[in-house]
Amino acid sequence: MSSDFAAWRATVQVDMEGMLLSFLPPVTQPPQRLHEAMQYAVLDGGKRVRPLLAFAAGELFDAPRDAVARAAAAVEMIHAYSLVHDDMPCMDDDDLRRGKPTVHKQYDEATALLVGDALQAQAFEVLANATLDAERRIAMLATLARASGSLGMCGGQAIDLASVRLVLSLAELEQMHRLKTGALLEASVMLGAMAGKTLTTADTEALRAYAAAIGLAFQVVDDILDATADSATLGKTAGKDAADNKPTYVSILGHQESLDLAEKLRQDAHSALKPFGDGAQRLKSLADLIVHRKT
Amino acid sequence: MSSDFAAWRATVQVDMEGMLLSFLPPVTQPPQRLHEAMQYAVLDGGKRVRPLLAFAAGELFDAPRDAVARAAAAVEMIHAYSLVHDDMPCMDDDDLRRGKPTVHKQYDEATALLVGDALQAQAFEVLANATLDAERRIAMLATLARASGSLGMCGGQAIDLASVRLVLSLAELEQMHRLKTGALLEASVMLGAMAGKTLTTADTEALRAYAAAIGLAFQVVDDILDATADSATLGKTAGKDAADNKPTYVSILGHQESLDLAEKLRQDAHSALKPFGDGAQRLKSLADLIVHRKT
Repeated sequence: MSSDFAAWRATVQVDMEGMLLSFLPPVTQPPQRLHEAMQYAVLDGGKRVRPLLAFAAGELFDAPRDAVARAAAAVEMIHAYSLVHDDMPCMDDDDLRRGKPTVHKQYDEATALLVGDALQAQAFEVLANATLDAERRIAMLATLARASGSLGMCGGQAIDLASVRLVLSLAELEQMHRLKTGALLEASVMLGAMAGKTLTTADTEALRAYAAAIGLAFQVVDDILDATADSATLGKTAGKDAADNKPTYVSILGHQESLDLAEKLRQDAHSALKPFGDGAQRLKSLADLIVHRKT
Repeated sequence: MSSDFAAWRATVQVDMEGMLLSFLPPVTQPPQRLHEAMQYAVLDGGKRVRPLLAFAAGELFDAPRDAVARAAAAVEMIHAYSLVHDDMPCMDDDDLRRGKPTVHKQYDEATALLVGDALQAQAFEVLANATLDAERRIAMLATLARASGSLGMCGGQAIDLASVRLVLSLAELEQMHRLKTGALLEASVMLGAMAGKTLTTADTEALRAYAAAIGLAFQVVDDILDATADSATLGKTAGKDAADNKPTYVSILGHQESLDLAEKLRQDAHSALKPFGDGAQRLKSLADLIVHRKT
Protein backbone atom coordinates (compact mmCIF):
# COMPACT_ATOMS: atom_id res chain seq x y z
CA MET A 1 0.00 0.00 0.00
CA SER A 2 1.57 3.28 -1.05
CA SER A 3 1.92 6.07 1.50
CA ASP A 4 -0.11 8.28 -0.84
CA PHE A 5 -3.02 5.85 -0.68
CA ALA A 6 -2.70 5.53 3.09
CA ALA A 7 -2.80 9.30 3.47
CA TRP A 8 -5.77 9.63 1.08
CA ARG A 9 -7.62 6.90 2.93
CA ALA A 10 -7.01 8.51 6.31
CA THR A 11 -8.19 11.87 4.97
CA VAL A 12 -11.40 10.44 3.54
CA GLN A 13 -12.09 8.60 6.78
CA VAL A 14 -11.60 11.73 8.89
CA ASP A 15 -13.57 13.94 6.48
CA MET A 16 -16.34 11.36 6.35
CA GLU A 17 -16.80 11.52 10.10
CA GLY A 18 -17.44 15.25 9.91
CA MET A 19 -19.69 14.92 6.88
CA LEU A 20 -21.78 12.15 8.45
CA LEU A 21 -22.21 14.28 11.55
CA SER A 22 -23.32 17.23 9.43
CA PHE A 23 -25.86 15.08 7.55
CA LEU A 24 -27.47 13.73 10.73
CA PRO A 25 -29.94 15.69 12.87
CA PRO A 26 -28.21 17.32 15.87
CA VAL A 27 -28.70 15.63 19.26
CA THR A 28 -30.05 18.90 20.60
CA GLN A 29 -33.09 18.53 18.34
CA PRO A 30 -36.05 16.44 19.57
CA PRO A 31 -36.46 13.53 19.73
CA GLN A 32 -33.03 13.79 21.35
CA ARG A 33 -32.64 10.17 22.36
CA LEU A 34 -33.37 8.94 18.85
CA HIS A 35 -30.96 11.43 17.34
CA GLU A 36 -28.29 10.50 19.86
CA ALA A 37 -28.77 6.81 19.03
CA MET A 38 -28.60 7.55 15.29
CA GLN A 39 -25.24 9.22 15.79
CA TYR A 40 -24.11 6.34 18.02
CA ALA A 41 -24.94 3.92 15.21
CA VAL A 42 -23.18 5.85 12.46
CA LEU A 43 -20.26 7.79 13.92
CA ASP A 44 -16.91 6.75 15.35
CA GLY A 45 -16.53 3.36 13.86
CA GLY A 46 -16.21 1.26 10.80
CA LYS A 47 -13.63 1.12 8.07
CA ARG A 48 -15.78 3.33 5.82
CA VAL A 49 -15.15 0.96 2.91
CA ARG A 50 -18.26 2.17 1.09
CA PRO A 51 -17.43 5.88 1.33
CA LEU A 52 -13.86 5.10 0.23
CA LEU A 53 -15.23 3.32 -2.84
CA ALA A 54 -17.56 6.22 -3.61
CA PHE A 55 -14.76 8.77 -3.33
CA ALA A 56 -12.33 6.70 -5.42
CA ALA A 57 -14.94 6.20 -8.15
CA GLY A 58 -15.94 9.85 -7.90
CA GLU A 59 -12.36 11.00 -8.45
CA LEU A 60 -12.09 8.79 -11.51
CA PHE A 61 -15.10 10.55 -13.06
CA ASP A 62 -14.29 14.07 -11.83
CA ALA A 63 -17.33 14.21 -9.60
CA PRO A 64 -17.77 17.28 -7.37
CA ARG A 65 -16.63 16.47 -3.87
CA ASP A 66 -19.81 17.78 -2.19
CA ALA A 67 -22.00 15.49 -4.23
CA VAL A 68 -19.78 12.46 -3.62
CA ALA A 69 -19.85 13.23 0.10
CA ARG A 70 -23.64 12.98 0.06
CA ALA A 71 -23.57 9.78 -1.96
CA ALA A 72 -20.97 8.30 0.39
CA ALA A 73 -22.90 9.36 3.48
CA ALA A 74 -26.16 7.95 2.08
CA VAL A 75 -24.58 4.57 1.39
CA GLU A 76 -22.90 4.51 4.79
CA MET A 77 -26.21 5.33 6.51
CA ILE A 78 -27.89 2.44 4.71
CA HIS A 79 -25.00 0.19 5.76
CA ALA A 80 -25.17 1.42 9.38
CA TYR A 81 -28.94 0.89 9.57
CA SER A 82 -28.55 -2.65 8.23
CA LEU A 83 -26.00 -3.43 10.95
CA VAL A 84 -28.29 -2.05 13.67
CA HIS A 85 -31.20 -4.20 12.50
CA ASP A 86 -28.98 -7.20 11.79
CA ASP A 87 -27.62 -7.17 15.35
CA MET A 88 -31.09 -7.24 16.93
CA PRO A 89 -32.14 -10.31 18.92
CA CYS A 90 -34.60 -11.48 16.24
CA MET A 91 -31.79 -11.48 13.66
CA ASP A 92 -28.16 -12.21 14.60
CA ASP A 93 -28.57 -11.26 18.28
CA ASP A 94 -25.16 -9.70 18.64
CA ASP A 95 -23.89 -7.60 21.56
CA LEU A 96 -20.77 -6.14 20.06
CA ARG A 97 -20.22 -4.02 16.95
CA ARG A 98 -17.20 -1.96 16.03
CA GLY A 99 -15.89 -2.63 19.53
CA LYS A 100 -18.93 -1.04 21.19
CA PRO A 101 -22.22 -2.40 22.53
CA THR A 102 -24.74 -2.76 19.71
CA VAL A 103 -27.53 -0.16 19.57
CA HIS A 104 -30.18 -2.39 21.15
CA LYS A 105 -27.77 -3.14 24.03
CA GLN A 106 -26.73 0.49 24.51
CA TYR A 107 -30.31 1.76 24.17
CA ASP A 108 -33.15 -0.74 23.73
CA GLU A 109 -34.72 -2.83 20.98
CA ALA A 110 -37.48 -0.40 20.10
CA THR A 111 -34.94 2.40 19.74
CA ALA A 112 -32.71 0.19 17.58
CA LEU A 113 -35.66 -0.54 15.32
CA LEU A 114 -36.47 3.16 14.95
CA VAL A 115 -32.81 4.13 14.52
CA GLY A 116 -32.56 1.80 11.54
CA ASP A 117 -35.84 2.99 10.06
CA ALA A 118 -34.93 6.66 10.48
CA LEU A 119 -31.42 6.18 9.09
CA GLN A 120 -32.82 4.65 5.93
CA ALA A 121 -35.08 7.67 5.38
CA GLN A 122 -32.19 9.99 6.22
CA ALA A 123 -30.01 8.33 3.57
CA PHE A 124 -32.55 9.11 0.85
CA GLU A 125 -33.05 12.64 2.11
CA VAL A 126 -29.29 13.33 2.15
CA LEU A 127 -28.95 12.07 -1.41
CA ALA A 128 -32.05 13.92 -2.65
CA ASN A 129 -30.45 17.19 -1.56
CA ALA A 130 -27.12 16.74 -3.37
CA THR A 131 -25.96 19.63 -5.56
CA LEU A 132 -26.35 17.84 -8.88
CA ASP A 133 -28.87 18.10 -11.68
CA ALA A 134 -32.15 16.42 -10.80
CA GLU A 135 -31.89 13.70 -13.48
CA ARG A 136 -28.62 12.54 -12.00
CA ARG A 137 -29.95 12.58 -8.45
CA ILE A 138 -32.99 10.56 -9.47
CA ALA A 139 -30.81 7.93 -11.14
CA MET A 140 -28.65 7.76 -8.02
CA LEU A 141 -31.67 7.52 -5.70
CA ALA A 142 -33.17 4.74 -7.80
CA THR A 143 -29.82 2.90 -7.73
CA LEU A 144 -29.56 3.21 -3.96
CA ALA A 145 -33.17 2.13 -3.41
CA ARG A 146 -32.74 -0.92 -5.65
CA ALA A 147 -29.48 -1.91 -3.92
CA SER A 148 -31.08 -1.58 -0.48
CA GLY A 149 -34.37 -3.35 -1.03
CA SER A 150 -35.68 -6.86 -1.52
CA LEU A 151 -33.72 -7.31 -4.76
CA GLY A 152 -30.56 -6.13 -3.03
CA MET A 153 -29.39 -6.01 0.57
CA CYS A 154 -32.68 -6.89 2.32
CA GLY A 155 -33.19 -9.76 -0.12
CA GLY A 156 -29.72 -11.08 0.65
CA GLN A 157 -30.45 -10.98 4.35
CA ALA A 158 -33.69 -12.87 3.80
CA ILE A 159 -31.80 -15.58 1.91
CA ASP A 160 -29.15 -15.61 4.64
CA LEU A 161 -31.82 -16.14 7.31
CA ALA A 162 -33.39 -18.95 5.33
CA SER A 163 -30.01 -20.62 4.82
CA VAL A 164 -29.18 -21.27 8.48
CA ARG A 165 -28.59 -25.01 8.96
CA LEU A 166 -28.95 -25.60 5.20
CA VAL A 167 -26.21 -26.89 2.94
CA LEU A 168 -25.74 -24.27 0.25
CA SER A 169 -23.93 -24.82 -3.00
CA LEU A 170 -21.14 -22.40 -3.83
CA ALA A 171 -23.43 -20.81 -6.43
CA GLU A 172 -26.20 -20.30 -3.87
CA LEU A 173 -23.76 -18.86 -1.35
CA GLU A 174 -22.46 -16.49 -4.01
CA GLN A 175 -25.95 -15.36 -4.97
CA MET A 176 -26.78 -14.67 -1.32
CA HIS A 177 -23.68 -12.53 -0.80
CA ARG A 178 -24.05 -10.83 -4.17
CA LEU A 179 -27.25 -9.36 -2.73
CA LYS A 180 -26.44 -9.10 0.97
CA THR A 181 -23.09 -7.32 0.75
CA GLY A 182 -22.37 -6.96 -2.95
CA ALA A 183 -25.36 -4.83 -3.91
CA LEU A 184 -24.49 -1.97 -1.57
CA LEU A 185 -20.75 -2.14 -2.36
CA GLU A 186 -21.64 -1.91 -6.04
CA ALA A 187 -23.96 1.01 -5.30
CA SER A 188 -21.08 2.76 -3.52
CA VAL A 189 -18.91 2.53 -6.61
CA MET A 190 -21.72 3.43 -9.01
CA LEU A 191 -23.03 6.39 -6.99
CA GLY A 192 -19.55 7.90 -6.71
CA ALA A 193 -19.08 7.57 -10.46
CA MET A 194 -22.61 8.72 -11.36
CA ALA A 195 -21.98 11.98 -9.47
CA GLY A 196 -19.34 12.82 -12.10
CA LYS A 197 -19.01 12.64 -15.89
CA THR A 198 -21.77 10.81 -17.73
CA LEU A 199 -20.95 7.10 -17.81
CA THR A 200 -20.73 5.17 -21.07
CA THR A 201 -22.09 1.64 -21.20
CA ALA A 202 -18.51 0.39 -21.19
CA ASP A 203 -17.74 2.46 -18.07
CA THR A 204 -20.77 1.06 -16.31
CA GLU A 205 -19.89 -2.50 -17.26
CA ALA A 206 -16.28 -2.14 -16.13
CA LEU A 207 -17.30 -0.61 -12.80
CA ARG A 208 -19.88 -3.34 -12.24
CA ALA A 209 -17.33 -6.06 -12.97
CA TYR A 210 -14.94 -4.43 -10.51
CA ALA A 211 -17.68 -4.09 -7.90
CA ALA A 212 -18.80 -7.69 -8.34
CA ALA A 213 -15.25 -8.92 -7.75
CA ILE A 214 -14.59 -6.82 -4.65
CA GLY A 215 -18.07 -7.57 -3.32
CA LEU A 216 -17.43 -11.30 -3.33
CA ALA A 217 -13.84 -10.83 -2.15
CA PHE A 218 -15.13 -8.78 0.77
CA GLN A 219 -17.36 -11.64 1.88
CA VAL A 220 -14.77 -14.38 1.34
CA VAL A 221 -12.35 -12.41 3.52
CA ASP A 222 -15.11 -11.78 6.08
CA ASP A 223 -15.65 -15.51 6.35
CA ILE A 224 -11.91 -16.17 6.69
CA LEU A 225 -11.61 -13.54 9.42
CA ASP A 226 -14.68 -14.81 11.25
CA ALA A 227 -13.09 -18.26 11.34
CA THR A 228 -9.57 -17.14 12.32
CA ALA A 229 -9.51 -13.77 14.12
CA ASP A 230 -10.62 -13.02 17.67
CA SER A 231 -13.47 -10.75 18.76
CA ALA A 232 -11.17 -8.06 20.17
CA THR A 233 -9.44 -7.70 16.80
CA LEU A 234 -12.68 -7.75 14.80
CA GLY A 235 -14.62 -5.45 17.11
CA LYS A 236 -17.52 -7.87 16.74
CA THR A 237 -18.20 -11.41 17.90
CA ALA A 238 -15.86 -13.82 16.08
CA GLY A 239 -16.76 -17.40 15.26
CA LYS A 240 -20.46 -16.49 14.90
CA ASP A 241 -20.90 -18.24 11.58
CA ALA A 242 -19.82 -21.65 12.81
CA ALA A 243 -21.77 -21.18 16.06
CA ASP A 244 -24.87 -20.24 14.04
CA ASN A 245 -24.40 -23.10 11.57
CA LYS A 246 -24.18 -20.61 8.75
CA PRO A 247 -22.67 -21.75 5.47
CA THR A 248 -19.48 -19.80 4.68
CA TYR A 249 -16.75 -19.87 2.06
CA VAL A 250 -14.45 -21.44 4.64
CA SER A 251 -16.96 -24.16 5.50
CA ILE A 252 -17.59 -24.95 1.82
CA LEU A 253 -14.15 -24.40 0.25
CA GLY A 254 -11.79 -24.73 3.20
CA HIS A 255 -9.27 -22.17 4.42
CA GLN A 256 -6.59 -22.30 1.71
CA GLU A 257 -9.01 -22.38 -1.20
CA SER A 258 -10.83 -19.40 0.28
CA LEU A 259 -7.55 -17.49 0.43
CA ASP A 260 -6.86 -18.42 -3.19
CA LEU A 261 -10.34 -17.30 -4.23
CA ALA A 262 -9.89 -13.94 -2.51
CA GLU A 263 -6.61 -13.43 -4.35
CA LYS A 264 -8.19 -14.40 -7.68
CA LEU A 265 -11.03 -11.93 -7.09
CA ARG A 266 -8.52 -9.20 -6.24
CA GLN A 267 -6.85 -9.79 -9.61
CA ASP A 268 -10.26 -9.83 -11.35
CA ALA A 269 -10.98 -6.45 -9.79
CA HIS A 270 -7.71 -5.05 -11.11
CA SER A 271 -8.36 -6.48 -14.58
CA ALA A 272 -11.82 -4.93 -14.73
CA LEU A 273 -10.27 -1.50 -14.20
CA LYS A 274 -7.81 -1.77 -17.11
CA PRO A 275 -9.87 0.51 -19.43
CA PHE A 276 -9.46 3.37 -16.96
CA GLY A 277 -5.65 3.30 -16.88
CA ASP A 278 -3.79 4.99 -14.03
CA GLY A 279 -6.81 6.99 -12.90
CA ALA A 280 -8.18 3.85 -11.30
CA GLN A 281 -5.23 3.38 -8.94
CA ARG A 282 -7.26 4.19 -5.82
CA LEU A 283 -9.94 1.68 -6.75
CA LYS A 284 -7.20 -0.91 -7.27
CA SER A 285 -5.68 -0.11 -3.89
CA LEU A 286 -9.12 -0.48 -2.32
CA ALA A 287 -9.41 -3.96 -3.83
CA ASP A 288 -6.04 -4.76 -2.25
CA LEU A 289 -7.19 -3.32 1.06
CA ILE A 290 -10.40 -5.37 1.04
CA VAL A 291 -8.50 -8.59 0.42
CA HIS A 292 -5.51 -7.91 2.70
CA ARG A 293 -7.39 -6.40 5.66
CA LYS A 294 -7.03 -8.02 9.07
CA THR A 295 -10.33 -6.83 10.58
CA MET B 1 -71.41 11.44 2.08
CA SER B 2 -72.55 11.76 -1.51
CA SER B 3 -72.96 8.64 -3.63
CA ASP B 4 -70.49 10.18 -6.09
CA PHE B 5 -67.85 10.33 -3.35
CA ALA B 6 -68.63 6.78 -2.22
CA ALA B 7 -68.21 5.51 -5.77
CA TRP B 8 -64.97 7.45 -6.28
CA ARG B 9 -63.63 6.14 -3.01
CA ALA B 10 -64.47 2.55 -3.86
CA THR B 11 -62.84 2.94 -7.27
CA VAL B 12 -59.62 4.37 -5.84
CA GLN B 13 -59.50 1.60 -3.24
CA VAL B 14 -59.93 -1.13 -5.84
CA ASP B 15 -57.50 0.48 -8.28
CA MET B 16 -54.99 0.97 -5.50
CA GLU B 17 -54.96 -2.74 -4.76
CA GLY B 18 -53.94 -3.52 -8.32
CA MET B 19 -51.40 -0.71 -8.43
CA LEU B 20 -49.78 -1.74 -5.15
CA LEU B 21 -49.51 -5.29 -6.45
CA SER B 22 -47.90 -4.07 -9.65
CA PHE B 23 -45.38 -1.95 -7.70
CA LEU B 24 -44.29 -4.87 -5.48
CA PRO B 25 -41.91 -7.63 -6.60
CA PRO B 26 -43.82 -10.77 -7.70
CA VAL B 27 -43.90 -13.66 -5.22
CA THR B 28 -42.42 -15.88 -7.92
CA GLN B 29 -39.18 -13.88 -7.72
CA PRO B 30 -36.58 -14.86 -5.07
CA PRO B 31 -36.47 -14.34 -2.17
CA GLN B 32 -40.03 -15.63 -2.47
CA ARG B 33 -40.89 -15.71 1.22
CA LEU B 34 -39.85 -12.09 1.70
CA HIS B 35 -41.84 -11.01 -1.35
CA GLU B 36 -44.86 -12.96 -0.18
CA ALA B 37 -44.60 -11.33 3.25
CA MET B 38 -44.28 -7.87 1.67
CA GLN B 39 -47.50 -8.46 -0.24
CA TYR B 40 -49.15 -9.81 2.91
CA ALA B 41 -48.23 -6.59 4.71
CA VAL B 42 -49.47 -4.24 2.00
CA LEU B 43 -52.35 -5.84 0.12
CA ASP B 44 -55.92 -6.70 1.05
CA GLY B 45 -56.49 -4.37 3.93
CA GLY B 46 -56.59 -0.89 5.21
CA LYS B 47 -58.83 2.02 4.45
CA ARG B 48 -56.22 3.48 2.08
CA VAL B 49 -56.74 6.90 3.60
CA ARG B 50 -53.33 8.09 2.40
CA PRO B 51 -53.84 7.04 -1.24
CA LEU B 52 -57.31 8.62 -1.17
CA LEU B 53 -55.76 11.88 0.02
CA ALA B 54 -53.10 11.72 -2.68
CA PHE B 55 -55.67 11.10 -5.41
CA ALA B 56 -58.00 13.83 -4.17
CA ALA B 57 -55.14 16.36 -4.01
CA GLY B 58 -53.84 15.14 -7.37
CA GLU B 59 -57.24 15.73 -9.02
CA LEU B 60 -57.34 19.24 -7.61
CA PHE B 61 -54.02 20.04 -9.30
CA ASP B 62 -54.62 18.09 -12.53
CA ALA B 63 -51.87 15.60 -11.79
CA PRO B 64 -51.41 12.68 -14.20
CA ARG B 65 -53.04 9.58 -12.77
CA ASP B 66 -49.96 7.36 -13.25
CA ALA B 67 -47.76 9.68 -11.25
CA VAL B 68 -50.31 10.04 -8.46
CA ALA B 69 -50.61 6.26 -8.33
CA ARG B 70 -46.88 5.99 -7.66
CA ALA B 71 -47.01 8.72 -5.03
CA ALA B 72 -50.00 7.05 -3.38
CA ALA B 73 -48.34 3.63 -3.47
CA ALA B 74 -45.09 5.01 -2.04
CA VAL B 75 -46.87 6.65 0.88
CA GLU B 76 -48.95 3.53 1.51
CA MET B 77 -45.81 1.36 1.51
CA ILE B 78 -44.20 3.64 4.09
CA HIS B 79 -47.40 3.43 6.15
CA ALA B 80 -47.54 -0.35 5.82
CA TYR B 81 -43.89 -0.78 6.81
CA SER B 82 -44.44 1.40 9.89
CA LEU B 83 -47.36 -0.81 10.95
CA VAL B 84 -45.28 -3.98 10.51
CA HIS B 85 -42.47 -2.61 12.68
CA ASP B 86 -44.87 -0.99 15.14
CA ASP B 87 -46.62 -4.31 15.76
CA MET B 88 -43.38 -6.15 16.60
CA PRO B 89 -42.87 -7.43 20.15
CA CYS B 90 -40.23 -4.79 20.96
CA MET B 91 -42.71 -2.04 20.03
CA ASP B 92 -46.48 -2.43 20.53
CA ASP B 93 -46.43 -6.24 20.52
CA ASP B 94 -49.69 -6.67 18.66
CA ASP B 95 -51.08 -9.87 17.17
CA LEU B 96 -53.87 -8.48 15.03
CA ARG B 97 -53.84 -5.94 12.23
CA ARG B 98 -56.54 -5.26 9.67
CA GLY B 99 -58.28 -8.37 10.99
CA LYS B 100 -55.33 -10.64 10.16
CA PRO B 101 -52.35 -11.91 12.18
CA THR B 102 -49.57 -9.33 12.17
CA VAL B 103 -46.56 -10.06 9.96
CA HIS B 104 -44.33 -11.31 12.78
CA LYS B 105 -47.12 -13.69 13.88
CA GLN B 106 -47.87 -14.93 10.37
CA TYR B 107 -44.16 -15.24 9.47
CA ASP B 108 -41.54 -14.48 12.12
CA GLU B 109 -39.88 -11.46 13.70
CA ALA B 110 -36.81 -11.44 11.48
CA THR B 111 -39.02 -11.53 8.39
CA ALA B 112 -41.17 -8.71 9.78
CA LEU B 113 -38.06 -6.61 10.33
CA LEU B 114 -36.88 -7.21 6.75
CA VAL B 115 -40.36 -6.69 5.28
CA GLY B 116 -40.46 -3.24 6.82
CA ASP B 117 -36.93 -2.39 5.71
CA ALA B 118 -37.54 -3.60 2.16
CA LEU B 119 -40.90 -1.82 1.89
CA GLN B 120 -39.27 1.48 2.81
CA ALA B 121 -36.70 1.08 0.04
CA GLN B 122 -39.45 -0.03 -2.35
CA ALA B 123 -41.42 3.13 -1.61
CA PHE B 124 -38.53 5.34 -2.68
CA GLU B 125 -37.87 3.24 -5.75
CA VAL B 126 -41.51 3.38 -6.86
CA LEU B 127 -41.56 7.15 -6.49
CA ALA B 128 -38.16 7.62 -8.18
CA ASN B 129 -39.57 5.92 -11.29
CA ALA B 130 -42.68 8.09 -11.66
CA THR B 131 -43.30 9.62 -15.09
CA LEU B 132 -42.69 13.20 -14.07
CA ASP B 133 -39.85 15.63 -14.68
CA ALA B 134 -36.86 14.88 -12.47
CA GLU B 135 -37.06 18.15 -10.48
CA ARG B 136 -40.59 17.31 -9.42
CA ARG B 137 -39.67 13.74 -8.49
CA ILE B 138 -36.73 14.92 -6.40
CA ALA B 139 -38.93 17.37 -4.51
CA MET B 140 -41.45 14.60 -3.88
CA LEU B 141 -38.76 12.14 -2.75
CA ALA B 142 -37.30 14.69 -0.36
CA THR B 143 -40.79 15.38 1.03
CA LEU B 144 -41.45 11.67 1.56
CA ALA B 145 -38.04 11.08 3.16
CA ARG B 146 -38.49 14.00 5.54
CA ALA B 147 -42.00 12.88 6.49
CA SER B 148 -40.81 9.32 7.15
CA GLY B 149 -37.64 9.96 9.14
CA SER B 150 -36.64 11.17 12.58
CA LEU B 151 -38.23 14.59 12.04
CA GLY B 152 -41.44 12.91 10.89
CA MET B 153 -43.02 9.52 11.48
CA CYS B 154 -40.05 7.75 13.12
CA GLY B 155 -39.52 10.74 15.39
CA GLY B 156 -43.17 10.65 16.43
CA GLN B 157 -42.88 6.97 17.26
CA ALA B 158 -39.79 7.65 19.36
CA ILE B 159 -41.69 10.31 21.30
CA ASP B 160 -44.64 7.92 21.64
CA LEU B 161 -42.37 5.23 23.10
CA ALA B 162 -40.84 7.68 25.53
CA SER B 163 -44.29 8.89 26.64
CA VAL B 164 -45.59 5.58 27.99
CA ARG B 165 -46.57 6.07 31.62
CA LEU B 166 -45.85 9.81 31.40
CA VAL B 167 -48.41 12.55 31.82
CA LEU B 168 -48.29 14.57 28.62
CA SER B 169 -49.76 18.01 28.21
CA LEU B 170 -52.20 18.49 25.34
CA ALA B 171 -49.45 20.40 23.48
CA GLU B 172 -46.98 17.52 23.91
CA LEU B 173 -49.55 14.98 22.78
CA GLU B 174 -50.33 17.10 19.73
CA GLN B 175 -46.63 17.43 18.83
CA MET B 176 -46.18 13.65 19.09
CA HIS B 177 -49.12 12.93 16.79
CA ARG B 178 -48.20 15.75 14.42
CA LEU B 179 -45.07 13.71 13.70
CA LYS B 180 -46.26 10.14 14.19
CA THR B 181 -49.39 10.25 12.05
CA GLY B 182 -49.63 13.81 10.77
CA ALA B 183 -46.37 13.95 8.84
CA LEU B 184 -47.25 11.08 6.51
CA LEU B 185 -50.86 12.21 6.06
CA GLU B 186 -49.53 15.64 5.10
CA ALA B 187 -47.05 14.02 2.71
CA SER B 188 -49.93 12.14 1.09
CA VAL B 189 -51.74 15.39 0.35
CA MET B 190 -48.60 17.23 -0.73
CA LEU B 191 -47.27 14.45 -2.97
CA GLY B 192 -50.57 14.13 -4.78
CA ALA B 193 -50.65 17.87 -5.38
CA MET B 194 -46.94 18.13 -6.28
CA ALA B 195 -47.48 15.60 -9.06
CA GLY B 196 -49.69 18.16 -10.80
CA LYS B 197 -49.60 21.90 -11.52
CA THR B 198 -46.82 23.87 -9.85
CA LEU B 199 -47.98 24.93 -6.40
CA THR B 200 -47.99 28.55 -5.30
CA THR B 201 -46.95 29.39 -1.76
CA ALA B 202 -50.61 30.01 -0.98
CA ASP B 203 -51.55 26.59 -2.36
CA THR B 204 -48.90 24.93 -0.21
CA GLU B 205 -49.99 26.79 2.90
CA ALA B 206 -53.66 25.95 2.38
CA LEU B 207 -52.89 22.27 1.77
CA ARG B 208 -50.67 22.14 4.85
CA ALA B 209 -53.35 23.73 7.01
CA TYR B 210 -55.86 21.18 5.71
CA ALA B 211 -53.42 18.33 6.32
CA ALA B 212 -52.60 19.51 9.84
CA ALA B 213 -56.30 19.56 10.73
CA ILE B 214 -57.11 16.14 9.32
CA GLY B 215 -53.89 14.69 10.78
CA LEU B 216 -54.88 15.65 14.29
CA ALA B 217 -58.51 14.74 13.67
CA PHE B 218 -57.40 11.31 12.52
CA GLN B 219 -55.60 10.73 15.80
CA VAL B 220 -58.35 12.13 18.01
CA VAL B 221 -60.82 9.78 16.33
CA ASP B 222 -58.33 6.90 16.65
CA ASP B 223 -58.18 7.49 20.38
CA ILE B 224 -61.97 7.68 20.64
CA LEU B 225 -62.35 4.43 18.68
CA ASP B 226 -59.64 2.69 20.69
CA ALA B 227 -61.54 3.57 23.85
CA THR B 228 -65.02 2.67 22.59
CA ALA B 229 -64.98 0.14 19.73
CA ASP B 230 -64.24 -3.56 19.96
CA SER B 231 -61.34 -5.43 18.36
CA ALA B 232 -63.52 -7.22 15.81
CA THR B 233 -64.80 -3.90 14.48
CA LEU B 234 -61.37 -2.23 14.46
CA GLY B 235 -59.51 -5.20 12.99
CA LYS B 236 -56.83 -4.55 15.59
CA THR B 237 -56.64 -4.89 19.35
CA ALA B 238 -58.92 -2.31 20.97
CA GLY B 239 -58.26 -0.74 24.35
CA LYS B 240 -54.50 -0.96 23.81
CA ASP B 241 -53.83 2.64 24.79
CA ALA B 242 -55.35 2.36 28.24
CA ALA B 243 -53.75 -1.05 28.76
CA ASP B 244 -50.38 0.37 27.75
CA ASN B 245 -50.82 3.50 29.90
CA LYS B 246 -50.49 5.63 26.81
CA PRO B 247 -51.72 9.20 26.99
CA THR B 248 -54.61 9.79 24.57
CA TYR B 249 -57.00 12.58 23.71
CA VAL B 250 -59.72 10.69 25.54
CA SER B 251 -57.58 10.28 28.67
CA ILE B 252 -56.62 13.96 28.67
CA LEU B 253 -59.79 15.66 27.38
CA GLY B 254 -62.48 13.11 28.09
CA HIS B 255 -64.89 11.55 25.60
CA GLN B 256 -67.23 14.44 24.79
CA GLU B 257 -64.51 17.04 24.51
CA SER B 258 -62.59 14.72 22.17
CA LEU B 259 -65.67 14.43 19.96
CA ASP B 260 -66.01 18.21 19.97
CA LEU B 261 -62.34 18.63 19.05
CA ALA B 262 -62.66 16.20 16.14
CA GLU B 263 -65.65 18.18 14.83
CA LYS B 264 -63.79 21.47 15.20
CA LEU B 265 -60.81 20.04 13.28
CA ARG B 266 -63.15 18.81 10.54
CA GLN B 267 -64.46 22.35 10.15
CA ASP B 268 -60.90 23.73 10.20
CA ALA B 269 -60.03 21.35 7.36
CA HIS B 270 -63.00 22.59 5.32
CA SER B 271 -62.07 26.21 5.99
CA ALA B 272 -58.49 25.66 4.87
CA LEU B 273 -59.78 24.48 1.49
CA LYS B 274 -61.89 27.59 0.79
CA PRO B 275 -59.38 29.09 -1.69
CA PHE B 276 -59.81 26.03 -3.94
CA GLY B 277 -63.58 26.33 -4.29
CA ASP B 278 -65.60 23.36 -5.51
CA GLY B 279 -62.54 21.47 -6.81
CA ALA B 280 -61.67 20.56 -3.25
CA GLN B 281 -64.92 18.69 -2.60
CA ARG B 282 -63.21 15.29 -2.46
CA LEU B 283 -60.68 16.54 0.08
CA LYS B 284 -63.56 17.92 2.14
CA SER B 285 -65.39 14.61 1.95
CA LEU B 286 -62.20 12.85 3.08
CA ALA B 287 -62.06 15.13 6.14
CA ASP B 288 -65.65 14.11 6.87
CA LEU B 289 -64.77 10.45 6.36
CA ILE B 290 -61.79 10.67 8.73
CA VAL B 291 -63.91 12.20 11.47
CA HIS B 292 -67.05 10.14 10.99
CA ARG B 293 -65.41 6.74 10.43
CA LYS B 294 -66.31 3.86 12.73
CA THR B 295 -63.09 1.84 12.31
